[in-house]
Amino acid sequence: MSQRTIGVTEVALRDAHQSLMATRMSLEDMVDACEDIDQAGYWSVECWGGATYDACIRFLNEDPWVRLRKFRELMPNSRLQMLLRGQNLLGYRHYEDMVVEKFVEKSAENGMDVFRVFDALNDPRNMERAMAAVAATGKHAQGTICYTISPLHTVEGYVKLAGQLLDMGAQSLALKDMAALLQPQPAYDIISAIKQTYGDVQINVHCHATTGVTLVSLMKAIEAGADVVDTAISSMSLGPGHNPTESLVAMLEGTPFTTNLDHDRLIRIRDHFAKVRPKYAQFESATLVDTDIFQSQIPGGMLSNMENQLKAQGAGDRIKEVMAEVPLVKADAGHPPLVTPSSQIVGTQAVFNVLMGKYKVLTGEFADLMLGYYGECIGPRNPEVVEIARAQAKKEPITCRPADLLEPEWDRLVSEASKLEGNDGTPEDVLTYAMFPSVAPGFFATRADGPKNVGKTAEQLAAESQSKQDAAGAVKGPIKYRVTLGGREHSVTVERA
Amino acid sequence: MSQRTIGVTEVALRDAHQSLMATRMSLEDMVDACEDIDQAGYWSVECWGGATYDACIRFLNEDPWVRLRKFRELMPNSRLQMLLRGQNLLGYRHYEDMVVEKFVEKSAENGMDVFRVFDALNDPRNMERAMAAVAATGKHAQGTICYTISPLHTVEGYVKLAGQLLDMGAQSLALKDMAALLQPQPAYDIISAIKQTYGDVQINVHCHATTGVTLVSLMKAIEAGADVVDTAISSMSLGPGHNPTESLVAMLEGTPFTTNLDHDRLIRIRDHFAKVRPKYAQFESATLVDTDIFQSQIPGGMLSNMENQLKAQGAGDRIKEVMAEVPLVKADAGHPPLVTPSSQIVGTQAVFNVLMGKYKVLTGEFADLMLGYYGECIGPRNPEVVEIARAQAKKEPITCRPADLLEPEWDRLVSEASKLEGNDGTPEDVLTYAMFPSVAPGFFATRADGPKNVGKTAEQLAAESQSKQDAAGAVKGPIKYRVTLGGREHSVTVERA
Repeated sequence: MSQRTIGVTEVALRDAHQSLMATRMSLEDMVDACEDIDQAGYWSVECWGGATYDACIRFLNEDPWVRLRKFRELMPNSRLQMLLRGQNLLGYRHYEDMVVEKFVEKSAENGMDVFRVFDALNDPRNMERAMAAVAATGKHAQGTICYTISPLHTVEGYVKLAGQLLDMGAQSLALKDMAALLQPQPAYDIISAIKQTYGDVQINVHCHATTGVTLVSLMKAIEAGADVVDTAISSMSLGPGHNPTESLVAMLEGTPFTTNLDHDRLIRIRDHFAKVRPKYAQFESATLVDTDIFQSQIPGGMLSNMENQLKAQGAGDRIKEVMAEVPLVKADAGHPPLVTPSSQIVGTQAVFNVLMGKYKVLTGEFADLMLGYYGECIGPRNPEVVEIARAQAKKEPITCRPADLLEPEWDRLVSEASKLEGNDGTPEDVLTYAMFPSVAPGFFATRADGPKNVGKTAEQLAAESQSKQDAAGAVKGPIKYRVTLGGREHSVTVERA
Repeated sequence: MSQRTIGVTEVALRDAHQSLMATRMSLEDMVDACEDIDQAGYWSVECWGGATYDACIRFLNEDPWVRLRKFRELMPNSRLQMLLRGQNLLGYRHYEDMVVEKFVEKSAENGMDVFRVFDALNDPRNMERAMAAVAATGKHAQGTICYTISPLHTVEGYVKLAGQLLDMGAQSLALKDMAALLQPQPAYDIISAIKQTYGDVQINVHCHATTGVTLVSLMKAIEAGADVVDTAISSMSLGPGHNPTESLVAMLEGTPFTTNLDHDRLIRIRDHFAKVRPKYAQFESATLVDTDIFQSQIPGGMLSNMENQLKAQGAGDRIKEVMAEVPLVKADAGHPPLVTPSSQIVGTQAVFNVLMGKYKVLTGEFADLMLGYYGECIGPRNPEVVEIARAQAKKEPITCRPADLLEPEWDRLVSEASKLEGNDGTPEDVLTYAMFPSVAPGFFATRADGPKNVGKTAEQLAAESQSKQDAAGAVKGPIKYRVTLGGREHSVTVERA
C-alpha cells in the first residue's frame, strides 16, 4: 500500500506553552530539545510570534530577536514558522504598511521561513500587506482561515475566503481552530470543498484540544486531503493546548497515511519537556476538557475574564445573564469569531450591557468594532448599535481598510525609539518599541541584565514540597521543645493556634 | 439525512473511577447523579463488577450488594451493566461452576441486566459457564474480546474468537481495549470483518484513553458498524480513564451518526462529578497521555509495579533490562494479552529473570500459566520453559478447561461463611466470602458500622490548602514574635535555617 506522507508542525516552542502556561517558557528551557526537533522530520517548527514576543519583553527580559536567531542557529534544517496577526503584527493595533513591511523583512532576515498570517475578523484586507511583504522576501506566506461557528458561517463562506487568500498570493492555507470548535464533519467538508474548488493547494490544519474531539477532526481533515497538521509533543499537550504528536503518529499507523517522524527523536523531545513542564505549573489552568463552548461559543479564557470583571463589580452572580448576552452582542457585531481581541471586546461589552443596561455605555473598543475600525465581519452590523457607537465615540463609521487611515509612522517610531535608554539602534528595536510602546522602554533599560527564567527550578520545587510536608508535620499536634535561652533551659510546647 | 443512533455506555460509576482513582469512589458520592444518568438516554450504565466489589469490602466498608440494589432503585429505566471475569467472577482464581452460577443468579436477582464476560487470556472455555448462566437468567450475555497486539494477533483471529463467543450464545460482543492499544485502522478492520462474517451482531467497543488516540478509534469503529461505545462523562474522563462522553456527542454531530443523549442531563452529570473528583485526588496518577505502550506493550500500571519490585531489591537501575525481558517472557507464554492478572504474572517473572537469571526461579503463578492452569493463549508455550515449570512446581501441564479440575465447593463455602462473625446467612455473603476469603471476615465484622468514605471533604481539602498556604508564608522570610516566658517578654525572630 502506498502511503501519503502527512506533514507535522510541532508547536511545543510557541503555541503549546502559550496555551498551557501563559507563554512563560524561557529560551533556556527549549535549547536542549532543538537538535531533536530539528532532526525529527517535522514539516515545520512553530517557535515564534503569537504572544511570545510580548511575553519575552514583558516577563522574561529576553530579546525576542535573539531568541529567533538562536532557533535559526540550533535548527538549521527546519522550516521555522511564526504566527502573525496580519496588520496588527504581534501588537494590539493596526500598523501603517511600512511598519508591517519592516517587520516581515527583519523576521525573514533573522531566520523566519513560514509566516502564518491571520486576522481575528477574517478580513482579507487586514492580511493583504503582510502576505505581500512575505512574498517579497521569498519566504512562505500562509493565508489563514479562523474557524468559528455561527448562523452565517458556512462551508461555502470558508471556501470563498480560501479563494481570496489564494488570490492574495498565499502559498498554502491554514485552517486555524483556536477554540477547538472544529468538529470532524465540518473539517472534512471544508477541506474537501477547498481541494475540489482550488485543486491541490497545501492545507495546514491547526486545532486546539480543549473540547476533546479535535484529533478526530484531524483524521477527517487528513482523509479529506489536508497536507500538514499541527500537534504538540505529548508532554506539552492536551487541555487548552493541542493534540499529542505521538498520538497523531499512532492514529495514522496502518492507514493510507504516515508522518515519517523519527520515533526516537520524539521520545527525547517528550522526555525533555516532561522535565520542563512542572517548572511552569503555577501558570497552568486546570482545564482538561470543556465542551461547553459548542453551546455558549464562549472560550474558556473569555469566560474567566468576564467572571473577573463581574466579581470586581460585586456582581459575580450575574454570569448567566452575561453568558446569555454574549451571543446577542456577537450577532449585533456581525458574528466575529471570538478570539483575541474580538473575544475580549465582545465579552466586556456583554458585561457592560448587563450591569449598566443594553448599550447604555459602550467601551471604546466595542464602538470601534461597530464602526469598522477593526475591519469587516462576515455579517452586517446592527445599524441601531452603529448609531449609538457613532454618537458615543463621536467618530464616523468606515468601510475602507482600517490601515488606509494611518499616516506613515516609521520615521517617528525610529526617532522615538532612539531616545530610549538601552536601545541598540537596530530596526529590530524600533519594531519592539512600535509594537509595545509601554513595555519596550523598561525592557531596553534592563536588557543587559539578561534573561529571567520565571519557571521554578527543581530545587525550588523540592523546597516547596518539603515546606508543604513540614507544614503537614507541624499541624499534627503539640510538640515539646527544650529551649535554652540566656543559659536557662525551658520546656516549651508548640501547637498550632 | 437519516442518522443511525449509536448507543453509549456510561462508565463513570465503574471503570472511570476504577481507572482514575483506584476504585475508591463511595456510593454516597454517586447517588445524586443517578437520576440524571437514568434519564440521559444511555444504552447502559456500567456500575458494578470489575474491581468495585473488592474495593467496596476492602476499603469502603460497603456491601457491594447493597450498592447494586441501590443502583437498581435509583435507575429504574436503565440497563445496569457489570464487568465479569468469566470463571474468575470478581476474584482472583477459578471457581467451580456452581459458584459461577450462583453468582450470576444473585447478580441478576439483585438487578443486573448486562453481563460483560471476559477472560484475560481470551480462552472461550473460561467464559462459557458464566455466559450460559447469564442466558439461564434471561439477562443479556455479552461475550468479550480482549484486544492486544502481538505477532500472532490478527484480524482473522479476532473474527474467529467472535464466532466462538456467538456460538456460546453471546447476545452481543464487546471489543475491550483496556490498554488503549486499539488504533483507528485495526478498529475499523476488526469491526468490519466481524460484521461481514456474522451479520448484524451488536458490537460494543470499550477503549481507554491513555494513548490519546482512541476517540479516533471509536469514530472508525462506528463507521465500520459498531453499535455501542463506552465513554465517561468529561469530569471523570481522560488519562488512564476513558474518552469524554460530551466529546463523543460533539464528534458525531453532522455525521450520519447520533447519540441522542440529553445534553442538559449530561451537563448535570458532569457538574456533579466535577465536584466529586477532587475529593479523590490522592488516588489519581499523573498520567495524561502515554504512547510508549505501543512499543513496549507494557501498560502503565504494570511498569510501576515492576519498578517497585526492582527498587525493593535495590535494583532500580535495571528497569530497562526488565522492559527488554517482558516481550520475551510474553512470547514464551504464548502471547497472552497483558492485563490483570497476566500482566502481573509476566512482569514479575521478567523481574525474576533479570535479577536471578533466566527462569532460574519461577513464580508459582508463572508456572501455573506455563502449565495451562489459567487456560490457553493464542500461541504455543515454549516447551523448554514448560519443562522447567513442571520440574519446579511438581505439577503436570493440563489441556482441559482449568475449572474442570475443581471439586464442588459451594456447600463448603456456605458452611465456612456461616461461621464468620457478622455473616448474614445470605447466598450473597457466601459469594463475598468465596471471592475474598481473607477480606470478607473483617468486612462482615465491621459491616454494621456503615460505609466509610475515603475521599476528602471540601472542609478537609480547604484545611490542607490553608496549611500549605501557611507553610508557604512561613518560609518567606524572618518573622518576629513576642514570646512571653516566665512572665518576661522576649523578642524572637524566626527564619528558615
